[in-house]
Amino acid sequence: MKRIAVDAMGGDHAPQAIVEGVNRALAEFPDVEIQLYGDQAKIQQYLTATDRVSIIHTDEKINSDDEPVKAIRRKKTASMVLATQAVKDGNADAILSAGNTGALLAAGVFVVGRIKNIDRPGLMSTLPTMDGSGFDMMDLGANAENTAHHLYQYAILGSFYAEHVRGIKRPRVGLLNNGTEETKGTPVHQEAFALLNQEPSIHFIGNVEARELLNGVADVVVTDGFTGNAVLKTIEGTAKSIVGQLTGAIKNGGLQAKMGGLLIKSTLKTALGTMDYKKAGGAVLLGLKAPVIKAHGSSDATAIYYTIKQVRTMLQSDVVQKSVEKFSVVEE
Amino acid sequence: MKRIAVDAMGGDHAPQAIVEGVNRALAEFPDVEIQLYGDQAKIQQYLTATDRVSIIHTDEKINSDDEPVKAIRRKKTASMVLATQAVKDGNADAILSAGNTGALLAAGVFVVGRIKNIDRPGLMSTLPTMDGSGFDMMDLGANAENTAHHLYQYAILGSFYAEHVRGIKRPRVGLLNNGTEETKGTPVHQEAFALLNQEPSIHFIGNVEARELLNGVADVVVTDGFTGNAVLKTIEGTAKSIVGQLTGAIKNGGLQAKMGGLLIKSTLKTALGTMDYKKAGGAVLLGLKAPVIKAHGSSDATAIYYTIKQVRTMLQSDVVQKSVEKFSVVEE
Repeated sequence: MKRIAVDAMGGDHAPQAIVEGVNRALAEFPDVEIQLYGDQAKIQQYLTATDRVSIIHTDEKINSDDEPVKAIRRKKTASMVLATQAVKDGNADAILSAGNTGALLAAGVFVVGRIKNIDRPGLMSTLPTMDGSGFDMMDLGANAENTAHHLYQYAILGSFYAEHVRGIKRPRVGLLNNGTEETKGTPVHQEAFALLNQEPSIHFIGNVEARELLNGVADVVVTDGFTGNAVLKTIEGTAKSIVGQLTGAIKNGGLQAKMGGLLIKSTLKTALGTMDYKKAGGAVLLGLKAPVIKAHGSSDATAIYYTIKQVRTMLQSDVVQKSVEKFSVVEE
Repeated sequence: MKRIAVDAMGGDHAPQAIVEGVNRALAEFPDVEIQLYGDQAKIQQYLTATDRVSIIHTDEKINSDDEPVKAIRRKKTASMVLATQAVKDGNADAILSAGNTGALLAAGVFVVGRIKNIDRPGLMSTLPTMDGSGFDMMDLGANAENTAHHLYQYAILGSFYAEHVRGIKRPRVGLLNNGTEETKGTPVHQEAFALLNQEPSIHFIGNVEARELLNGVADVVVTDGFTGNAVLKTIEGTAKSIVGQLTGAIKNGGLQAKMGGLLIKSTLKTALGTMDYKKAGGAVLLGLKAPVIKAHGSSDATAIYYTIKQVRTMLQSDVVQKSVEKFSVVEE
């Protein structure tokens, strides 16, 4: 049985979206057991599942604007903290939250703990590509600064994830840089290039540019947390702006445009579906002793369902244990 | 008379697109004089203008894959080098090239020279926003690493450009960061925030996030060259991918989608026109003693025309001299 601790109170649509996602996951995955942390009365309003689910009541929760480290230290009985503690205590195998990202990162590092020899856990998401296959990028902002050695560890963690969780054989690992030549970027990038180039356990394809990410230039893209965060937000912002611009133009474009819009509606929906973030699951804090997964704050029940599916695959593939073994051998 | 030195041999469509853009600019701007550097016979094939234009013949040119610094040192008679030299010698007021970006940056710094007290010239472009007003972002990759003081100087240079060249009163200057709170980012960002916050000559609005750039959150966005380059390429790549995905879906979507596509064609064209890079002009290397402008490598005649228009506005507004005065006062 895969035991997943779920913070029922985190996210814009909590607890409804969280609990409804849990209902669906429990119905589809007979090997999953869910522990819901949060307000019992509110959770029960939406909970239809009865088997393999328990509620651990607490009145306290971490808000989206709480200062992360302070919040997890002071709010000892917050739903997110209790859920993380369950993993540490061996009562759950993984934790999922759609709440305060910084707090979850802090809880992951301080409560669940780092894998031995991992310097900095990094935040990784599977982002959509135009062909639908997607790519894993990390770090998306767990750290503002990274050394070459951090990037090197990200590459191995990301490659393990792509291989074992997404089922990609010999994932192509790229280093995000401002040009493809190996002399590009800062000294940190040049040093990371050299480290990656001599690492036999990954298939390093060299530097990749941000312009090519959505074309599927690599299966795993490694970058520092500051750049990764900026690139992720740029993709989101640009996609949203352009789709908004086009749909707005059709809506305000007179009868002819409106008719045209009706005719292409389903086609566009399918095309944009390739880029649907919901099915990609949540962001994973890689480098910890157990899966710690952050669902998007705006997650609806569908997104939560897919994130639970992703956690289940992580547990089935035992990717964390494989990472533990790799790093115990490589670095000692 | 504004005397602009133009590298006729740089860019994917040189010299045709360059010369045709020059023809149009000369016809529309009676106060502009153009010096065309490059292969005389090839240039004359396309040159229809006769007034206020001269050709300075040379057989040598810098290729897009030449190593920048080596190229400008060894190819002493390359069209780009001669054009830059003309500015240094006082025979031209500005230089424009669509060729090798790195080489133009190197030629700008080593031949034209930095404004006194400017540490690092930065590359700036006006990027499109959804409402059509645009924003200036720098550094886009002239430097891979920047100190807080570099970012502070970028803010002043960018604000001067937005005010004097684009005519924006009290331009809103934002620092690109991974969150809006002033404690966000690396120590460099935190220090830059403090410097910008106490600078009276600019209207600093605080940190801005990459997600909001295309919504026009600021008129000037300051960032280090590595992040700026990544964000610029992400905007370009994402926009291209999404538009490609949508038009591809319509084309391959059967009769109904095709009919719908025909009906909305002109509406979409207008909507995407708001984001047209061509009219935005080229990238400016700010912080130099004269305007040094890089047109996009893929520039057609229209893009070259708009870039010449931009150079003309820079010369008319005397923005460089204003920057020289500002930095001679501020920093001594």
